[in-house]
Amino acid sequence: MSDLKSKFLEVYSALKSELLHDPAFEFTDVSRQWVERMLDYNVPGGKLNRGLSVIDSYQLLKDGKELTDEEIFLASALGWCIEWLQAYFLVLDDIMDNSQTRRGQPCWYRLPKVGMIAVNDGIVLRNHIPRILKKHFRGKPCYVDLLDLFNEVEFQTACGQMIDLITTLEGEKDLSKYSIPLHHRIVQYKTAYYSFYLPVACALLMAGENLENHIDVKNVLIEMGTYFQVQDDYLDCFGHPDVIGKIGTDIEDYKCSWLVVKAMELSNEEQKKLLHENYGKEDPTSVAKVKELYNTLNLQGVFEEYESKSYEKLISSIEAHPSKAVQAVLKSFLAKIYKRQK
Amino acid sequence: MSDLKSKFLEVYSALKSELLHDPAFEFTDVSRQWVERMLDYNVPGGKLNRGLSVIDSYQLLKDGKELTDEEIFLASALGWCIEWLQAYFLVLDDIMDNSQTRRGQPCWYRLPKVGMIAVNDGIVLRNHIPRILKKHFRGKPCYVDLLDLFNEVEFQTACGQMIDLITTLEGEKDLSKYSIPLHHRIVQYKTAYYSFYLPVACALLMAGENLENHIDVKNVLIEMGTYFQVQDDYLDCFGHPDVIGKIGTDIEDYKCSWLVVKAMELSNEEQKKLLHENYGKEDPTSVAKVKELYNTLNLQGVFEEYESKSYEKLISSIEAHPSKAVQAVLKSFLAKIYKRQK
Repeated sequence: MSDLKSKFLEVYSALKSELLHDPAFEFTDVSRQWVERMLDYNVPGGKLNRGLSVIDSYQLLKDGKELTDEEIFLASALGWCIEWLQAYFLVLDDIMDNSQTRRGQPCWYRLPKVGMIAVNDGIVLRNHIPRILKKHFRGKPCYVDLLDLFNEVEFQTACGQMIDLITTLEGEKDLSKYSIPLHHRIVQYKTAYYSFYLPVACALLMAGENLENHIDVKNVLIEMGTYFQVQDDYLDCFGHPDVIGKIGTDIEDYKCSWLVVKAMELSNEEQKKLLHENYGKEDPTSVAKVKELYNTLNLQGVFEEYESKSYEKLISSIEAHPSKAVQAVLKSFLAKIYKRQK
Repeated sequence: MSDLKSKFLEVYSALKSELLHDPAFEFTDVSRQWVERMLDYNVPGGKLNRGLSVIDSYQLLKDGKELTDEEIFLASALGWCIEWLQAYFLVLDDIMDNSQTRRGQPCWYRLPKVGMIAVNDGIVLRNHIPRILKKHFRGKPCYVDLLDLFNEVEFQTACGQMIDLITTLEGEKDLSKYSIPLHHRIVQYKTAYYSFYLPVACALLMAGENLENHIDVKNVLIEMGTYFQVQDDYLDCFGHPDVIGKIGTDIEDYKCSWLVVKAMELSNEEQKKLLHENYGKEDPTSVAKVKELYNTLNLQGVFEEYESKSYEKLISSIEAHPSKAVQAVLKSFLAKIYKRQK
């Protein structure tokens, strides 16, 4: 494990301990154990990319000057706030999607003792974020901006989740409602704000910047998040299950995936009919027919073209930015995802 | 309808319209309609006591001086934030409790088109609160304190809900885990903070007060909230269904009610055995046996004594407060609930 990652995980333990002794609530032994188990199960088990990138970004914004221990702790605390936010979304999304597994273990709500208490656990996770922020940032100049930022990004994510849920309902009646602008909108709100913009925005606020001066940074990160999700949609169908760590089920689940939207766009009437008849069906024959059509339409080639076009566009947007430090932050993000296989 | 209540409802329409045109999210027509229907179904249909009491309290803090239109609007907006918070809790609580009806209509998640999307709708309701606060209070001196207050109270409520849920799980194994301190703790966190303390705290912040100087006000309101919940538990069993508007099911649901806690406290071994065998059972014979025991133990008399003792204690705490205006706020709250029948 890298040195940075092990320091980051130490901060998790420190934050958890604070939350388990939060004076705003009188824990019973049973409830303290419950929260500890719930946190350990749901918060630290992911790739931690979002959280770690707060520290990376802050480091780059500081032009490579060595960070103090306090700076590392604070950037890590903000990174963990994003991981807590992610855990909260995932616990609740899994309930809404009726999912079975997450990160290679049963979803939290699937545990026999948990069940629907998981809804409240999701809420508790969400409520930990302002507790962490208050404990470590109250009194600092960026405090109110941090609260506003987390509130706005959570709002946008909830709205993105809403259009995704409603769209899937509507799409089941009529596949032609799936379009590139709708796909873009869902991805932008549901994923890009919290996964791409939020880590950098946290680093900018910690570095004393005013976010209103960084609308262009936001726009680049939203585009990067969109590109990331298109990759995700592509890998769900064309990635290797051993590499991506799961078997994709977007076709079965009637997802508004970039692939089905592109397929609808490129299909003739007969091919559209095939999609209407087979998309969203559980049986393997239907799924195979959809995949065959994706191949006939050369969606792999269409994706590769999309990928290189997106890359060029992102690089030129980044290089138009006046600050070399900000350019470095954005390029570091892009390098992590360009041509990823998982 | 009172003039105040109709003004308050006008503010609801104004806030709803702002939220449906929030620039932080690009609505589709379908998603805008969804949110509007969801708000109308879940937010304004209650008694609105919590929301209205922000205006009442603020008025009393201003020593009866007539409020400006702006003050009425802002106090109403804070009142609505509490109603939004309540709607968010109820939408999610009904899912967790597997409830059927709420305020005389099916629970939101029970509507065929809604289902588990209700989890995200709850989240959207919650996210509207900081949108309202930002739109109307950003830049005012109390803004950051309002954010902190709503965050802290929501956290406490979620923790209260957590111990209630875990306790019911544990209680099903062992009724003797239900005790007065545990009951008090659940009620304090799950109900009293957001229903009693929050409205007054909002009014105090709007009036420019520092909440750290009002710990005694908080303590009185928490005690009042506890008294209110004990009444609620009492009325669930002894109130008239026509008056309280529902048929109580605390006995069937294995609730940690004040009545069962008192009954355990006052029972001999034989009576405890009866409780163990019959509490939390659906069948009417078991319920009748529990109620008969409550009568044998004279819980109505025990409650009446609790009620008058609580009242005296609350009045003397209130009269110890140095400010007549604050005394008026607290007495007005107490008058609304003392010896209530519904």
